[in-house]
Amino acid sequence: MAKQYSRRNLDFLLKEVIQVDQLIKYPYFQDYTPDMFDMVLDTAEEIADKILRPSYIDSDRKQPELINGKTKVHPAVKDYVKAMGDSGMIGAIFPYEDGGQQLPTVIGAANEFIRGAAHNSFVMFTGLTTGTAHLILSFGSEKLKETFASRMITGEWSGTMCLTEPQAGSSLSDVVTTASPQADGSFKIKGQKVFISAGDHDVTGNIINLVLARIDGAPLGTKGISLFVVPKYRADDQGNFSIDNDVVSTGIYHKMGQKATPAMHLTFGDKDDSVGYLVGEPHKGLQYMFQMMNEARLGVGMGATYIASSAYYASLEYAKERPQGRRLNNRNLEEEQTFIINHPDVKRMLLSQKAMVEGCLGLLLECYFWEDMIHASGAKSEEGQRYQMLLDLLTTVAKTYPAESGIKSVNEGLQVFGGYGYTEDFPLEQMARDVRIMSIYEGTTGIHSLNLLGRGITFQGGKAPQLLFAEMIGTIKEAQTHDDLVPYAEKLEKELGRLQKVTMHLLGIAEKGDNEVFLSDANLYMEFFGIVTVAWQWLKQGIVAKTALVTKNPTGDELAFYESKIHTMKFYFHYELVKTLSLSVRLTDPEVLTISNEMQPAI
Amino acid sequence: MAKQYSRRNLDFLLKEVIQVDQLIKYPYFQDYTPDMFDMVLDTAEEIADKILRPSYIDSDRKQPELINGKTKVHPAVKDYVKAMGDSGMIGAIFPYEDGGQQLPTVIGAANEFIRGAAHNSFVMFTGLTTGTAHLILSFGSEKLKETFASRMITGEWSGTMCLTEPQAGSSLSDVVTTASPQADGSFKIKGQKVFISAGDHDVTGNIINLVLARIDGAPLGTKGISLFVVPKYRADDQGNFSIDNDVVSTGIYHKMGQKATPAMHLTFGDKDDSVGYLVGEPHKGLQYMFQMMNEARLGVGMGATYIASSAYYASLEYAKERPQGRRLNNRNLEEEQTFIINHPDVKRMLLSQKAMVEGCLGLLLECYFWEDMIHASGAKSEEGQRYQMLLDLLTTVAKTYPAESGIKSVNEGLQVFGGYGYTEDFPLEQMARDVRIMSIYEGTTGIHSLNLLGRGITFQGGKAPQLLFAEMIGTIKEAQTHDDLVPYAEKLEKELGRLQKVTMHLLGIAEKGDNEVFLSDANLYMEFFGIVTVAWQWLKQGIVAKTALVTKNPTGDELAFYESKIHTMKFYFHYELVKTLSLSVRLTDPEVLTISNEMQPAI
Repeated sequence: MAKQYSRRNLDFLLKEVIQVDQLIKYPYFQDYTPDMFDMVLDTAEEIADKILRPSYIDSDRKQPELINGKTKVHPAVKDYVKAMGDSGMIGAIFPYEDGGQQLPTVIGAANEFIRGAAHNSFVMFTGLTTGTAHLILSFGSEKLKETFASRMITGEWSGTMCLTEPQAGSSLSDVVTTASPQADGSFKIKGQKVFISAGDHDVTGNIINLVLARIDGAPLGTKGISLFVVPKYRADDQGNFSIDNDVVSTGIYHKMGQKATPAMHLTFGDKDDSVGYLVGEPHKGLQYMFQMMNEARLGVGMGATYIASSAYYASLEYAKERPQGRRLNNRNLEEEQTFIINHPDVKRMLLSQKAMVEGCLGLLLECYFWEDMIHASGAKSEEGQRYQMLLDLLTTVAKTYPAESGIKSVNEGLQVFGGYGYTEDFPLEQMARDVRIMSIYEGTTGIHSLNLLGRGITFQGGKAPQLLFAEMIGTIKEAQTHDDLVPYAEKLEKELGRLQKVTMHLLGIAEKGDNEVFLSDANLYMEFFGIVTVAWQWLKQGIVAKTALVTKNPTGDELAFYESKIHTMKFYFHYELVKTLSLSVRLTDPEVLTISNEMQPAI
Repeated sequence: MAKQYSRRNLDFLLKEVIQVDQLIKYPYFQDYTPDMFDMVLDTAEEIADKILRPSYIDSDRKQPELINGKTKVHPAVKDYVKAMGDSGMIGAIFPYEDGGQQLPTVIGAANEFIRGAAHNSFVMFTGLTTGTAHLILSFGSEKLKETFASRMITGEWSGTMCLTEPQAGSSLSDVVTTASPQADGSFKIKGQKVFISAGDHDVTGNIINLVLARIDGAPLGTKGISLFVVPKYRADDQGNFSIDNDVVSTGIYHKMGQKATPAMHLTFGDKDDSVGYLVGEPHKGLQYMFQMMNEARLGVGMGATYIASSAYYASLEYAKERPQGRRLNNRNLEEEQTFIINHPDVKRMLLSQKAMVEGCLGLLLECYFWEDMIHASGAKSEEGQRYQMLLDLLTTVAKTYPAESGIKSVNEGLQVFGGYGYTEDFPLEQMARDVRIMSIYEGTTGIHSLNLLGRGITFQGGKAPQLLFAEMIGTIKEAQTHDDLVPYAEKLEKELGRLQKVTMHLLGIAEKGDNEVFLSDANLYMEFFGIVTVAWQWLKQGIVAKTALVTKNPTGDELAFYESKIHTMKFYFHYELVKTLSLSVRLTDPEVLTISNEMQPAI
C-alpha cells in the first residue's frame, strides 16, 4: 500500500514551524528530550504498520453486527487497543498525577495522525477513551478517577460520549434523559442516546459511558444538564464489575463509512436499573462536556486531514505509475504513453490535495501546541489566557474547514484514479465514504458556523479575533523580510483587511437584532475565515521553507521538499485564497440579505 | 418514500419554457398531440412507482455477483426491461422506418428523468440498449439492423459499449483490441475491455457488445479504430443464436455506488473464437461512436440531475418534518422545537439543491430539444446546422457541470439529514455513492474541460460560442422588458462580458503555442462556462415565471410555484453566479500561468 503521510512533513511542522522543542524549557515538559518525541512517532508508525493498515479494508467489508444484544467488532480492534494500552499512549498526555506522562498534546496529536492515516475508524476506540478518561480526571471525584479513569488509561476499559438523543439531534437544550437521585448518592438513569460511537463492542471488559441527563426538577435548556458516568457493568458488593447496568444496545446503525466503528443506539434504564454516578456538580454537565467536545472537534479536523493525507499519497503514487495518453505538447503516437502526473489537470488535483492536507495539518498542530502552551505557562497566566482565547476561537474553524476541505480533497484523490477510484480495488472509494462524516461529527458545519459568527467573533468584545489578527500581522511582517514572499504577504494582508470589513458589515446587521438575517450566511463566513486562516498557516510554512532554502543550502530530496513547500504555498494563495473575492461579495451583497429568509424552497 | 421529482416542474420546463408542443408543427412529429406527451410521462411514472422505486435500496444491498463465469443481477431488472420493451420506450425516439415512434428526444429524456429519479442504476440497462441500437441503426448494414437492432428495441436483447481498455483508460488512441478479417467478411476479435456497464447479466437472451478495435494493419491512433458488433451469442447455421461467441466475463468490479449495474471486465477471443461484424466502414469507428458518446454524455448529465432531484425532495421532506432546536430569533425553551427547514442554513442547502437541479434540468432539456429541432428542420438546413453547433458545444458542458453540481447537491442533501444522512436508514448515503461516478463516466471532468477549451470554443473560428452568446443576449433583452428582472439581465450581461474577456485572454495564451499552459486551468474555465450557462437557463425560467405571474394571476400552489421560481433564480445569481468573480481572477492571473507546470506535488 502507498505511503499514507509524510514523516518529513510532520517533522517540518513540529520541529521547524512550531518548534516544539521549546516546550522542554518549561517545567511541565522538562523530562522530555527531542529524541523522545521522535520515539513517540516511531511507536505510532509501528502500530500503524503492524495492526492498523493491514485491517483497514477488511474491517470495512466485515462491519460490526449486533446479534442478540451483543456487538461484535473486527478482531483486530482488540490487538490495536492492547498495543495502545501497552505503549501507554491512551493517557500519555495526562499529568503525572493522573497516571499520564505529560506528553505534549501536539506530539500526541502527531502520533494520532500517523495512526489515523492508516485506519481512521479503529483510532476512534482509543480517542474516545482518552477523551472520556480526561473528562473524569478533570471533573470527577477521587473515587470516580480511581475506579474508572485508571482502568481506561491502560486500555482495560473504554469510554463513550452519550450526548445525542433521537428527538433532539444537535439541540442539546432538548435532552430529556432523566437522572433520579438514589439514597446512596447515585442516580437512576433513563433515556435513549443515538449515534454512540464505539457504544458497544467485545473489545474491553467494561464500557464507561459519559451521559448527559437531567436530574429530576432541573431547569429547562442546557443549564439543567448534568454529566454522569454510566458503566455497562457496575460493581457488586465485592467491588467486581459483574452487574449488568441496564445499558442496552437497542440498535446498530449501518453507515456509509467508518464502518469498523459501531454507532449504537443505547437505551438506559429500560428495566429501571441503570445506575449513574454524577460527575462534578449538578447542572454543569454541558460545561464539563465542552472540554471533551473541544478535544473531539480538533480530533475531527485531524480525522478529515489524515484521511485526506492517505488519499493524497495513494493518488500521488497512482499518478506517478499510471501511463495514459500523451502530454498536451507532444501528441506523438509513436511514443509510449506518459504518466498521468504529467497532465496539468491531474497535477492540479494533486497540488490541491497537498495544499489542503499540509495547510490544515499546520493549523491543527498549532492549535494543539497552544494547548501545550496553556499547560506550560499556566492556565491563569496572561500568556495562558491568550492561548486559551486563540484556541477557543479557532477550535470551531479547525474542526470545520479541514472537514469540508478533507471531503473535497479525498474527492479529488478519487478523481485522479478515474474509474478505478470508484471501485473497491483501490482504497479511495472507502476513504471518500469514511471522510464524509467529518462535516457532521461533533457539530455540523452549519452549527459551527453559527458558533463562529454568532459567538466566537463577538465574545468579550471581539478580543479573540484581535489576538488572531495580531498573530497574522506578525507573520505578514516576517514574510516581508523575504523578497520572494512579499507578494504573498501583501495578498494575506489584503485578505485580512477584507475579512475585517466583511466582519464589521455583518456585525452591523447583527446590531439591528435580526439573528436569522445576521446568521443566514454564517456558513460562507466560516469558509472565508477558514481560507484566510489556512493561508496564514501557509505563509508561516513558506517563511520557514524560504529561510531553510537560504540558510541550509539544501540539496537533493531536501531541496525538493522545501521548494515544493513554496510551490504549494503559492498554489494555495492563487487557487484557494482567491475564492474569498466571491465570498466577500456575497457576504456584503445589500440586495439579498434576506434572500433565504423570504424564499421557500418548496414545490 | 418521498417525492423524487416535480411533475409540475417538468411540465413548466417542457410546456412553458421550451414549448415542446411547437414540434408538432413539423412533419417529422406531426402524428403527436400534447396529450400524447403527457401519456409518455405517465408511463414513466407507472414504471417508476411499480418497479423501480421499490427495488432501489434492495438492489444496492444485493449487488450483482459473477459466479462461474455468469453474472446474476437483481431479479427486478428483468421486470423493468420487460416493462420498457412492452411500453415501446426503448426505441421510441427512433424514426418510424427503424421501428421507432419518432417521439421527441426531449420527451424521451423527461421520461428517463422520472425513471432515473426512482432508480438511477436500473435505467442504465435500457439506456445503453437504446444507445447501441441507435448506433447500429445509424451506421450498420441492413443485415445488422435486422438481426440485432430490431431485437434490442423490444427488450429481447440488450446492448453495451466497449471502449475502455485496462492499459489505455481515457486514451482511446491507445486501444489495442484487434480485429482480423475472415473469409466470410466477419472479423475475429481479440482484446480486453474494462468497466463495461451491464456487460454481463441474466436479464436478456443475448448481449450485443459494440466494440472498438483495430483491423490488422490499421494506422496508429484514433484514425485506425473500427467499430464492431460482437454479440455474446452468435448465430448457428439455422440462424439460432446458440453459439457462445467467446466473450468471457473475466471480472466484475465492486463499486462505491450504482451497485445494481454490473461493471464488467470482458475478455474477447481468448479461445480465438470471438466473431465481430464491422459497423459501417473501417477506421471510422470512433467517429460513429461519438454519436453514442454524445447521447451518453447528456445521459450522464441527466443521471447526476435526477439523483440530485431525488436527494433534494428527500431532504426537503425531512426538513419539513424533523423538529430540532429553535429559531434563531426565538430561543424560548418553553415552546416546541421548530422544524429544521426554518433554520437559515438548512434553507440555504435546500435552495442550493433546487437551484442546481432545476437549472441543470433546464439546460439538459434544451439540449435534447435542439436534437429534435435538428430532426424537425433537417440536419442540412441552416437552422438544423445552427442547432447542431449549439448542441456540439454544450454537450460537454451539459455533461460536466450537472455532474459536478449533482455531486455537491446530493452532498448538501445528505448534510440536511445530519447524522441520519450518513446511515443506511435513509437513502441519501446511497444517492451520494451513486452520483459520485457521474464526473467520471463518459469522459472525466478533466477531459471534457480540455474538450471545451481546447476545441469547443475554437472550432470553426469560434462560431458555436458566438451562436450561444447570441442566444444569451436574446434572453437578456427579453428579461429587460420586465422591471423586476432588469438587475438579473444586467448581471448576466456583465458575466457574459467577463466570460468573453477570459476566453480571449486564454486564446491569447494558446497562440503562443504552449498547450500545457493554455489548458492547465481548463477545469476552472469549464466551471465558469457552466455557471454562466445555467444562469442563462435560470433567467429564461425567470422570464417565463414572471410572465405567468403577471398574465395568469395565479393563486395557491400555482402562485407559490412561480414565486419559488423567481426566488430560486435570484438565489442562483446571488450564490452561484458570484463565483465567477474569483474564477475569472484566477484564470487571468498573469503571475501563475505556469504554476502547475513548474511545481511538483511530490514528497
